[in-house]
Amino acid sequence: MTSADLDTQRATETHPDGVSEGFLSWFADRTRATACQVTRTPLSDLRGWSLDAATGNLTHHSGRFFAIEGLHVRTSYGQVPEWSQPIINQPEIGILGLLVKTVDGVPFGLVQAKMEPGNFNSVQLSPTVQATRSNYTRVHRGDRTKYLEHFTHPRAGTVVADVLQSEQGSWFLHKRNRNMIVQVDDSVPAADGHHWMPLDELRSLLRIDGLVNMDIRTVLSCLPASFFAAQDRHGTDGMASALARSISGDGTPLHSAETVLSWFTAAKSRHELAVRRVPLRALPGWRNTPEEIVHDDGQHFSIIGVSVRTNDREVGEWHQPLIYPSGRGLVTFVVKDIDGVAHLLVNARYQAGLLDAMEMGPTVQCNPGNYSGPGPRFLDYVRQVPAERILYDTILAEEGGRFYHSQNRYLLVDAGDDVPIEVPEEFCWVTAHQLTGLLRHGYYVNVEARSLLACLHSLW
Amino acid sequence: MTSADLDTQRATETHPDGVSEGFLSWFADRTRATACQVTRTPLSDLRGWSLDAATGNLTHHSGRFFAIEGLHVRTSYGQVPEWSQPIINQPEIGILGLLVKTVDGVPFGLVQAKMEPGNFNSVQLSPTVQATRSNYTRVHRGDRTKYLEHFTHPRAGTVVADVLQSEQGSWFLHKRNRNMIVQVDDSVPAADGHHWMPLDELRSLLRIDGLVNMDIRTVLSCLPASFFAAQDRHGTDGMASALARSISGDGTPLHSAETVLSWFTAAKSRHELAVRRVPLRALPGWRNTPEEIVHDDGQHFSIIGVSVRTNDREVGEWHQPLIYPSGRGLVTFVVKDIDGVAHLLVNARYQAGLLDAMEMGPTVQCNPGNYSGPGPRFLDYVRQVPAERILYDTILAEEGGRFYHSQNRYLLVDAGDDVPIEVPEEFCWVTAHQLTGLLRHGYYVNVEARSLLACLHSLW
Repeated sequence: MTSADLDTQRATETHPDGVSEGFLSWFADRTRATACQVTRTPLSDLRGWSLDAATGNLTHHSGRFFAIEGLHVRTSYGQVPEWSQPIINQPEIGILGLLVKTVDGVPFGLVQAKMEPGNFNSVQLSPTVQATRSNYTRVHRGDRTKYLEHFTHPRAGTVVADVLQSEQGSWFLHKRNRNMIVQVDDSVPAADGHHWMPLDELRSLLRIDGLVNMDIRTVLSCLPASFFAAQDRHGTDGMASALARSISGDGTPLHSAETVLSWFTAAKSRHELAVRRVPLRALPGWRNTPEEIVHDDGQHFSIIGVSVRTNDREVGEWHQPLIYPSGRGLVTFVVKDIDGVAHLLVNARYQAGLLDAMEMGPTVQCNPGNYSGPGPRFLDYVRQVPAERILYDTILAEEGGRFYHSQNRYLLVDAGDDVPIEVPEEFCWVTAHQLTGLLRHGYYVNVEARSLLACLHSLW
Repeated sequence: MTSADLDTQRATETHPDGVSEGFLSWFADRTRATACQVTRTPLSDLRGWSLDAATGNLTHHSGRFFAIEGLHVRTSYGQVPEWSQPIINQPEIGILGLLVKTVDGVPFGLVQAKMEPGNFNSVQLSPTVQATRSNYTRVHRGDRTKYLEHFTHPRAGTVVADVLQSEQGSWFLHKRNRNMIVQVDDSVPAADGHHWMPLDELRSLLRIDGLVNMDIRTVLSCLPASFFAAQDRHGTDGMASALARSISGDGTPLHSAETVLSWFTAAKSRHELAVRRVPLRALPGWRNTPEEIVHDDGQHFSIIGVSVRTNDREVGEWHQPLIYPSGRGLVTFVVKDIDGVAHLLVNARYQAGLLDAMEMGPTVQCNPGNYSGPGPRFLDYVRQVPAERILYDTILAEEGGRFYHSQNRYLLVDAGDDVPIEVPEEFCWVTAHQLTGLLRHGYYVNVEARSLLACLHSLW
């Protein structure tokens, strides 16, 4: 069975259980109310952006926001020992903040409907605050960021999570955002464009294609296990019960916390990845045209420009470059019930733009279109897995503020006995509870794995 | 009182309580048996090392070991917005490994007496294994590293700690070593040059000037709290009891773990530190001579060369560059009894060579000689503190494999009521137990603070 076969199996849930009419009508209203026009524009015509005379780097005249630069990578790991690529350099740390409250024992989150120029569907569901430092310090000279006061010091509310987490390591150089969850009391109203909804309902929405954006997925992944403890399904049989134990931390993990940390430290020490920032001009394997910057073989991604007009933002009109991926990616956790506890098969994964070069990624994370020959480990397995083994299957977008029409198909696959407990040295079986514990700290779990971990919570 | 006054107060303990004649005679034997001749040699005469024609970087002809390169730093934090400096680039991850065993309930560690060319006293106490990747993969073509098999996979023994930790962020670019503690049974003998000793006795040795090297100090700091639980002193009064509670985790910390993590994340997000590798040639503020590379004002440090002859190493003779600090540093934790629990005042500290720019450092960490005017926060306080408030005071060396005659005076100071609970935003009161918990992960606590945390354990 090929990747195309896998595609034919998809059955999208348009209205999963647990989604209220209230939400659907609010979101439909917001979508109608959001005017947004995104027009492809040659890089050479982007207002405010130009190629640096010395380096050819694509930069904003303010020196802020972000820049497209070159990166040279050399590594002792894998089949490609050396390559060059464009990369987004955005040293600023932004805030991805979610307000939560508990009403009669039920946890709620404050979401917003937000347009991003790279979204294939214009408006997606976002966290309460999603702001770059340029946004919230008002370099754009736009409006004040709503609810920002809960995410700066001193604040009204209790910090539940506050951690720097990486973003797409193949496209961003050392990018981190501050993932924050702050608990407030009942007195914070939903502003225009914002909506309080039960976290359970929010999780159900993760089964709808392209609705819940990357920023809220990564924040949700950082929610401590205690927020799920009430929803006990230990009584159920089979995988549902194994997932419940995996999330709650009941039941014994295959590996102790020390063993998982030691496995990861060993993996980091095994190889070297030498990364060097280089001029974007004359990057080997890449071609500059007035329109865009493209890979010689048309693979991986290109750098394109857009002009944006909208009524949804602090600033009504702007130009910017975006990364345009060459095809749809596949992001998969292979899941296995080990002694009644669901384990996820994480991959110690190098990505050139990650601050520490390696984080734990999903079992499979790739663009299948980049491989004519053999792909990465477990890609063939996932492509051939029968439909009844697919626990979760949704197409989700990556960050629409930097990526144009970026889509990944997110899968959770029940391996049954197909995949043994013994796995290659760059893989390790961990529980959801172990991953959640690691997410109190940065640089352990990459953004694709964090997204899938959030999606896992939609299953029960 | 001046820094010179502080110096006159020092009372060195040559034989603290708990140090056995067995250890002293073994160590004296090893010192006598170690022949070592270190000769200052002009950089231009270093065999195997040369200045790269294009960059002026000082590199080894093998392309391995390490290189001296240039670094340019720009930051929105502090009083110096921009500077350039030489830095050691050593991307390899080495192993600092300590074997431990328990005999009749008493934990023992396997130490070695090891010469390093930069040591002011030639031989110091080191962990079981202290090896760069070049060492243990035998790039030197030297002898096999003893006990390495316990720190590679698969191993005989149980991993107690295994974590990548940073080293001197002002002198190393992105340097990490793998700090490992492995527990074995009674059957592992001490080889020539190695010695099994009780961890309690090892800790007592931390009160002797220049004896216990940096590598074993950082490994000791990663020892989990459970290794200390048996040594309960909760019965004692005052600071001893407060320290016991601080280490064991009994008693309530001033701040919850979430609050400490959030404080640190906020500190990281507050400023930017932009670091760029630049050619060593023509580095602003620095002067190249055939002998050395020196700062124009004679401050900070210089790069010098040495030739080494010894019978203590895999290779009997070699040349290498070293960093030579311009004076003795001061490394201090201010300690405060808060509701019966000793708290350490950590500083969220930028250092240009740290992978993530910021880690938690001691309250004061500086070379007082670099300040003619006002120094960093709390420096004046520490300089004037009366002798009876000094809990710990020992001069210890930094890594002698890279630094020449580097000495820091390590102090623990009881602040009493001199320092309030409210502190400036870049400081935070934490317990020793909280710091130990963070040391399961990398990039939280810098090497100077880790050293002092290990020293704290010598107090009880």
